[in-house]
Amino acid sequence: MRILVLGGDGYLGWPTALHLSQAGHEVAVADNFVRRHYDNELGVESLVPIEPLQTRIAVWRELTGKTIGLYVGDLTDALFTYHIIADFEPGAVVHFAEQRAAPYSMIDRAHAVYTQQNNVVGNLNILFAIAEANPDIHLVKLGTMGEYGTPNIDIEEGWLDLEHNGRTDRVLFPKRPGSFYHLSKVHDSHNIEFACRIWDLRATDLNQGVVYGAHTPETEGHRDLRTRFDYDDIWGTVLNRFCAQSAVGHALTVYGEGGQTRGFLDIRDTVRCVELAALNPPDRGEFRVFNQFTEQYSVSQLAERVKAARSAHGLETTITHLPNPRTEMEAHYYKAKHQRLLDLGLVPHNLDDSLIDRVIGLVEHYKGRIKPELFAPRVDWRFGGRGKIKAAPTGRRRVAIAPSVARRG
Amino acid sequence: MRILVLGGDGYLGWPTALHLSQAGHEVAVADNFVRRHYDNELGVESLVPIEPLQTRIAVWRELTGKTIGLYVGDLTDALFTYHIIADFEPGAVVHFAEQRAAPYSMIDRAHAVYTQQNNVVGNLNILFAIAEANPDIHLVKLGTMGEYGTPNIDIEEGWLDLEHNGRTDRVLFPKRPGSFYHLSKVHDSHNIEFACRIWDLRATDLNQGVVYGAHTPETEGHRDLRTRFDYDDIWGTVLNRFCAQSAVGHALTVYGEGGQTRGFLDIRDTVRCVELAALNPPDRGEFRVFNQFTEQYSVSQLAERVKAARSAHGLETTITHLPNPRTEMEAHYYKAKHQRLLDLGLVPHNLDDSLIDRVIGLVEHYKGRIKPELFAPRVDWRFGGRGKIKAAPTGRRRVAIAPSVARRG
Repeated sequence: MRILVLGGDGYLGWPTALHLSQAGHEVAVADNFVRRHYDNELGVESLVPIEPLQTRIAVWRELTGKTIGLYVGDLTDALFTYHIIADFEPGAVVHFAEQRAAPYSMIDRAHAVYTQQNNVVGNLNILFAIAEANPDIHLVKLGTMGEYGTPNIDIEEGWLDLEHNGRTDRVLFPKRPGSFYHLSKVHDSHNIEFACRIWDLRATDLNQGVVYGAHTPETEGHRDLRTRFDYDDIWGTVLNRFCAQSAVGHALTVYGEGGQTRGFLDIRDTVRCVELAALNPPDRGEFRVFNQFTEQYSVSQLAERVKAARSAHGLETTITHLPNPRTEMEAHYYKAKHQRLLDLGLVPHNLDDSLIDRVIGLVEHYKGRIKPELFAPRVDWRFGGRGKIKAAPTGRRRVAIAPSVARRG
Repeated sequence: MRILVLGGDGYLGWPTALHLSQAGHEVAVADNFVRRHYDNELGVESLVPIEPLQTRIAVWRELTGKTIGLYVGDLTDALFTYHIIADFEPGAVVHFAEQRAAPYSMIDRAHAVYTQQNNVVGNLNILFAIAEANPDIHLVKLGTMGEYGTPNIDIEEGWLDLEHNGRTDRVLFPKRPGSFYHLSKVHDSHNIEFACRIWDLRATDLNQGVVYGAHTPETEGHRDLRTRFDYDDIWGTVLNRFCAQSAVGHALTVYGEGGQTRGFLDIRDTVRCVELAALNPPDRGEFRVFNQFTEQYSVSQLAERVKAARSAHGLETTITHLPNPRTEMEAHYYKAKHQRLLDLGLVPHNLDDSLIDRVIGLVEHYKGRIKPELFAPRVDWRFGGRGKIKAAPTGRRRVAIAPSVARRG
């Protein structure tokens, strides 16, 4: 199968491209390298040094004889997006190429607008490009479990059968997400469902949980094939950050009570889920949603898991609670379905101590590169902010402290 | 009360500004005049000649002694948006300033992207400007009943109390709209709800039905105060278009079966609803939704109403059914609540023959300006298109005809 991976230079895009190439698919990647630019902007970097994408692709070819095609450009540039679809003629387009950090989207107005504009326009261009080039192409879109928020009812996979005043309907599951980033994914989902409805496109929306881990079989094949690993407050997902903190003897920083519960999955399951979705396309006209995670944990439970894994080696770990920089419920009901990828054959890598040890081992190897000051949250949902980075006079200002908010906070 | 009307040069924005000014409020309007630009782009114009906004404001002042402030600029320019909020210090901001035509958003990729980018970014800038300048400001946002689509269940006012697997929650009413324009309003609604949740803003989302009519007491005060009247396929709302067709002896053009049912309201109720919302702000932190319409009709019922009103004067009217250029259900359940504005004191102007006569009389006065070729729909939901306007090589191309779509169509 010919598969085009958009955002193929990223934390998950690159291992996905490798996995699909290894599995025998013809793969091309597209990227505009903005993820590397965000590092420059924020003064952060991947803990694991990563090679330029061109080098990665060349090393992969030397090792395996397999070719990965490369397109460099921006999806908000319609000419580029039309070109890559027409030129590569993919059977499936896997779309990772969005700004993917909630805190980044909450820095200030400019970052909120950038996130929604970049994600929504890029995704619209892909929909039009597919509709015009070949509506048989299957769009495999990375969404997020965060689109749902934390409702007091069971979370279904994208659609909800409901009864109201004695009548029934199947509706899109109501969304109430927690950041301008998560909102951008909700906007995308609505746009994709509409495109399936009016143009008979086929799409799978992968509402992915929080990913942890650093290794896939392919990235382990050579040091130049490794994927990025982020531990800072903006880009570091929670378990990766806890492992990094633990490795350098820093307290695990839980935001607020720690009862925030989310779906999680191993990076090895991400790449497999994407492949399963691509191999089993929906019918034309279908907007299909998979909840892509394997286990659900609260943040406190994850911290305890890391602490226990360390304790098994006789190491002491402290857990500390910081004021929560996010506006979110810290104790709530959470039960999300995640059956459909299992039905397609996913065999989950559940979280175990050896994985935690493995990630901590990786961080210890690079501990000289850790900047502990990057653990502390710099972006507050209520006030924006970028820590020490001085705000520009307008459009970069922090959101003013509303009196009643200040009282609550 | 100080009220800032965004989009104050438009079909509804201008009569709203006049109504609020007449009611004794201090009013300013903002506009970038892009609505007049769309006319140039598409080769259409208001049937009723309209004066420049500066003239309108000057005539209003001469007639009544009342001043309406004017800001000229674009809400996607954050500096402008921050400036007008800080400078005018409104108690309420009434936001009409969005691209508001479904067919316009469906012309092609460029128009879809423009619509969502313009509407979403402008609205985000307003939210940030209010949060930073004064989070007490009440945002009165024009949404649309079209956000809901046509679900098989009763449509509530924005929120839905539901039970699922034995648990209950109050969720945002699930949305499934029918164009990239309607989707832009869904995106706005989600963004506004979030801003209310995290910054304690107060907002009213007015999910407005299809507006008909041309006169309010204020626009009738002087010929230079009249508002625009559109009858073409892109901008003409259905009842106004039927009246125009009837006035020149053209058949009333119903798309498809005509069982499409929507909420409708008189333009005089629009201006009153906005005032009622502004006068009765929600609490801080509340995202409030009103369904702003007074009666629901199917398209066929409306055509029959126009035919009957003409028949009372001994005039014959033909009703014709065109192939539906939209992708929508042509016969469906539709029952939408619209109680909350009535509770605040709205006394509806229900549709009657004299109103229809009145609108037809207006059109007859200007019948020499009617271009009957503008009645025919030029934009097809499945294929895009702008009729005779030649498409640019890319980004303006029509959406290709998907084989299975073509079979269905």
